[in-house]
Amino acid sequence: MNDKTTGRITGVLSPVVTPFRDDLSADKARLIAHCRWLQSQDCGLALFGTNSEANSQSVDERLSLLDAIVAAKLDTARMMPGTGCCALPDTVRLTRHAVEQGCAGVLMLPPFYYKGVSDDGLFAYFSEVIQRVGDSRLRIYLYHIPPVAQVPLSLPLIERLLKSYAGTVVGIKDSSGDWNNSQALLDIGDSFDVFVGSEAFLLANMRNGGVGCISATANVNPAAIVDLCRYWRREDADARQEALTRTRHVLQALPMIPALKATIAQYSGDPDWSNVRPPLVRLSEDEQVDLKRALDSIGFTMPSMGA
Amino acid sequence: MNDKTTGRITGVLSPVVTPFRDDLSADKARLIAHCRWLQSQDCGLALFGTNSEANSQSVDERLSLLDAIVAAKLDTARMMPGTGCCALPDTVRLTRHAVEQGCAGVLMLPPFYYKGVSDDGLFAYFSEVIQRVGDSRLRIYLYHIPPVAQVPLSLPLIERLLKSYAGTVVGIKDSSGDWNNSQALLDIGDSFDVFVGSEAFLLANMRNGGVGCISATANVNPAAIVDLCRYWRREDADARQEALTRTRHVLQALPMIPALKATIAQYSGDPDWSNVRPPLVRLSEDEQVDLKRALDSIGFTMPSMGA
Repeated sequence: MNDKTTGRITGVLSPVVTPFRDDLSADKARLIAHCRWLQSQDCGLALFGTNSEANSQSVDERLSLLDAIVAAKLDTARMMPGTGCCALPDTVRLTRHAVEQGCAGVLMLPPFYYKGVSDDGLFAYFSEVIQRVGDSRLRIYLYHIPPVAQVPLSLPLIERLLKSYAGTVVGIKDSSGDWNNSQALLDIGDSFDVFVGSEAFLLANMRNGGVGCISATANVNPAAIVDLCRYWRREDADARQEALTRTRHVLQALPMIPALKATIAQYSGDPDWSNVRPPLVRLSEDEQVDLKRALDSIGFTMPSMGA
Repeated sequence: MNDKTTGRITGVLSPVVTPFRDDLSADKARLIAHCRWLQSQDCGLALFGTNSEANSQSVDERLSLLDAIVAAKLDTARMMPGTGCCALPDTVRLTRHAVEQGCAGVLMLPPFYYKGVSDDGLFAYFSEVIQRVGDSRLRIYLYHIPPVAQVPLSLPLIERLLKSYAGTVVGIKDSSGDWNNSQALLDIGDSFDVFVGSEAFLLANMRNGGVGCISATANVNPAAIVDLCRYWRREDADARQEALTRTRHVLQALPMIPALKATIAQYSGDPDWSNVRPPLVRLSEDEQVDLKRALDSIGFTMPSMGA
């Protein structure tokens, strides 16, 4: 469900988890099947996000996976691949490729190796990317995730980017986990699309002018999240929000990425889905059993993936 | 001055700063000239470190620069390129290439995107790299730089790696800035080579069994640092340490990488040396003037670079 006026991407997107074989190579067939299932739930594809272990993949791997997904006729109007790397040439290459493949937008981390960098430096970085890509189709969603990247995007920086690159810098994923920050971003106004990084804030975001969420758990619970996003004006919205938050709490009690993959492995009957790339580690057998029990106890089910 | 028994690299190494043209492309000729000058001062080459803006370069750029440096007949026995990236395939590719080019060792960052990762995950990461490179010539120096990478290497992890990969994991660069940590690393014993990440700790490191330092300021002050490292048993060692520390304090009062590049630009009369890649920013004109004045005031001079 993209915006009817601007065509811009809205709603719920999943930072799609990346399946790896036992030799740690990415598994295109499993990834395409998972993407298809997510789209069948009306969930957009925020490929190559934090939960995709994107930064554990080489640029060439990421290019090749996106090519395979596009070739499989998945809907590029509902795709927002992550393209922000530490190195400017890598970010330019991934961003240009995503635009050329017709993706509706890109989700862009700041360069995250150096810490304590200045707003001037970050502005120069994003400016270089935009100028080097040089394509009017480019739509950038900034990715604010200080707990992981440790390089925050300040409000003055965002406002400066919006002023200089209106129509190109169009939104943000706020994974600060701080509602006050999300509210400040919403206050920027209608031309700036705010996605919260957790469905725990989805209802608050929709009530305050946000456009949706890009959330890890959409990998396993897309239908319920999409449902609240679509029908947030209904009377039972608060109860639905509570149910979503409950499911999230069960999953985030464990390391999120291994927990998501273990959940997919369990519900799809495909144990290889549990693989992660180091430095992440898969859940232990005990943790997998505990997770399944906890999900069962709240009545969680995952619609058949047919994968 | 490599170790006479083991042949392992010792002494002072410079995390070689990378010159960029105005279009931000790396300048091979200037880089080779700087490397030649450093080697003429008996300073080893820790190419592609934090101060090299290595993580601001693509893997292909790094491969190409190392090829050019080796082709220029610089001494690979005194080279320790940085090869640690977030993505396992990138780290394997850079590490294999450095070994094949005959480099004495590699300096390896942990994968630094995810934070709070487990020792098990980091152990699995380094293990995969070692096994995939699969070359008995590989010598890994771990790179502990928590203020930047935000992913520390714990003592139990290091001991586990040493036990499993004796002769391959052979040392560390400790950029914690915490002498207690350096001392704990020195206590591991003779088979583990400790380089401190700042010459402010050089004398203490040499007196306690360390092998040298890998320090940013060796880019501009190599002779004096090499001198203390070689003659640390002399009576005037404390005074020499004080002088080194004084120079360092002047440089680190500004952002270190732009300050180093501005210093090289000034003393070599080559203003292009001031360029940095975003998210870093070059020193302002005022900052450059202040830096020169501060360096002059402590009698700092840089031997002719002939570049």
